[in-house]
Amino acid sequence: MSKVTAQLSVSADGFYAGPRHTDDGDGDWMASAESAGFFRVTRWVTDAMAWRERQGFAGGERDTNSDVVAEQFAAAGAYVMGRRMADGGEVPWGEEPPFRAPVFVVTHRPRQPLHRRGGTSFTYVTDGVASAVAQARAAAGGRNVAVAGGGSLVRQVLRAGLLDELELHVVPVVLGTGLRLFDADLDLGEKEAIELTPTRVIHTPQVTHIRYVVGGRAPLVLDDRGSGGGPTATR
Amino acid sequence: MSKVTAQLSVSADGFYAGPRHTDDGDGDWMASAESAGFFRVTRWVTDAMAWRERQGFAGGERDTNSDVVAEQFAAAGAYVMGRRMADGGEVPWGEEPPFRAPVFVVTHRPRQPLHRRGGTSFTYVTDGVASAVAQARAAAGGRNVAVAGGGSLVRQVLRAGLLDELELHVVPVVLGTGLRLFDADLDLGEKEAIELTPTRVIHTPQVTHIRYVVGGRAPLVLDDRGSGGGPTATR
Repeated sequence: MSKVTAQLSVSADGFYAGPRHTDDGDGDWMASAESAGFFRVTRWVTDAMAWRERQGFAGGERDTNSDVVAEQFAAAGAYVMGRRMADGGEVPWGEEPPFRAPVFVVTHRPRQPLHRRGGTSFTYVTDGVASAVAQARAAAGGRNVAVAGGGSLVRQVLRAGLLDELELHVVPVVLGTGLRLFDADLDLGEKEAIELTPTRVIHTPQVTHIRYVVGGRAPLVLDDRGSGGGPTATR
Repeated sequence: MSKVTAQLSVSADGFYAGPRHTDDGDGDWMASAESAGFFRVTRWVTDAMAWRERQGFAGGERDTNSDVVAEQFAAAGAYVMGRRMADGGEVPWGEEPPFRAPVFVVTHRPRQPLHRRGGTSFTYVTDGVASAVAQARAAAGGRNVAVAGGGSLVRQVLRAGLLDELELHVVPVVLGTGLRLFDADLDLGEKEAIELTPTRVIHTPQVTHIRYVVGGRAPLVLDDRGSGGGPTATR
């Protein structure tokens, strides 16, 4: 059965983009602080040959990071995507977007499906994230359903208990401000957490890839192992 | 010359403790949501034999994580600590705190130095974080100055450009809410970042240790590598 996966490039302080760009119709997202942060944390992707090939760009590095990109493309049989990301990508991705698979866009605005060259289609789902994931699963042909972002959508899928696997690509930079993958809307109780199990770590100078299997919600229980010990210097 | 280092255990979503406990004098920090989060992300420490030995506790794991703890204790010739952490630890650390080195506490409240058994002393520094770091450096005997936390103090040292090395101990859990190591007070410009260079990654099932050398502030420059490419599924 298909797994539902998400991958996001984040800074060491947890941002996947700079501060949110307010679109006032001038179309200058590319010049915004949001994009400056986004392009910094995704530099390892845009440098990768596997990504550049899909975008029709020459050059790029054929290295471990490129293998990680290629692996992600190969594993995904269908995508689920937020509306803002789909809108932002529509023009730059052009007539032949890099997905080469069905994409289900979670939105409040009904719209006819969009069919592109190379196997990419965009289907606009107006009845919620669970429905989008179910439709993607049906379309994935046994391969994975990849939650493509942005962060808000990843959080919705995580909060709904639908995410099987999360891979963080942790980039060695501190942005200080911007859009956080993990914001305050996970709806976890004060002494509740979501436990993860790391299953793979790949480290390169440009980025550390940490893959987690997502466990269920679990209470935070204080056992007696730390008894007598308050905060310590080794924390 | 001494390096100024900081180590903090953080959840996958960047929290080093649960939501801040408001001390109303009832002394129940240990029962708070703040401590529940703190003890979850420091569980790998309290399980480590190297930490338990310093605290006078029996048992513990003699493993890679314990080696990381032992290495940190050995590398630190002096500590800089926030006032809240020093206050919270004063009772539980007892007559023989685990530091065995001079500790410089950044505070607004003048207080006589406190001398404990085993080589630990607490000196209260009221003229700022740079002064505390300078005094710790003079006392460190060529070993490192370790910024012991909490997060607010680590950010102050980072913001002041005084931090040479940062090690994040990334614990596989999502807390959803709490005290963040990286909060919004780093004073970075919108298109400005602090670049890091990862120098060591050690991965265990309990925690991923990522050590960074801290570079300077740098502008976020959009180069042409990502040209034509908007947000992509591989981000």
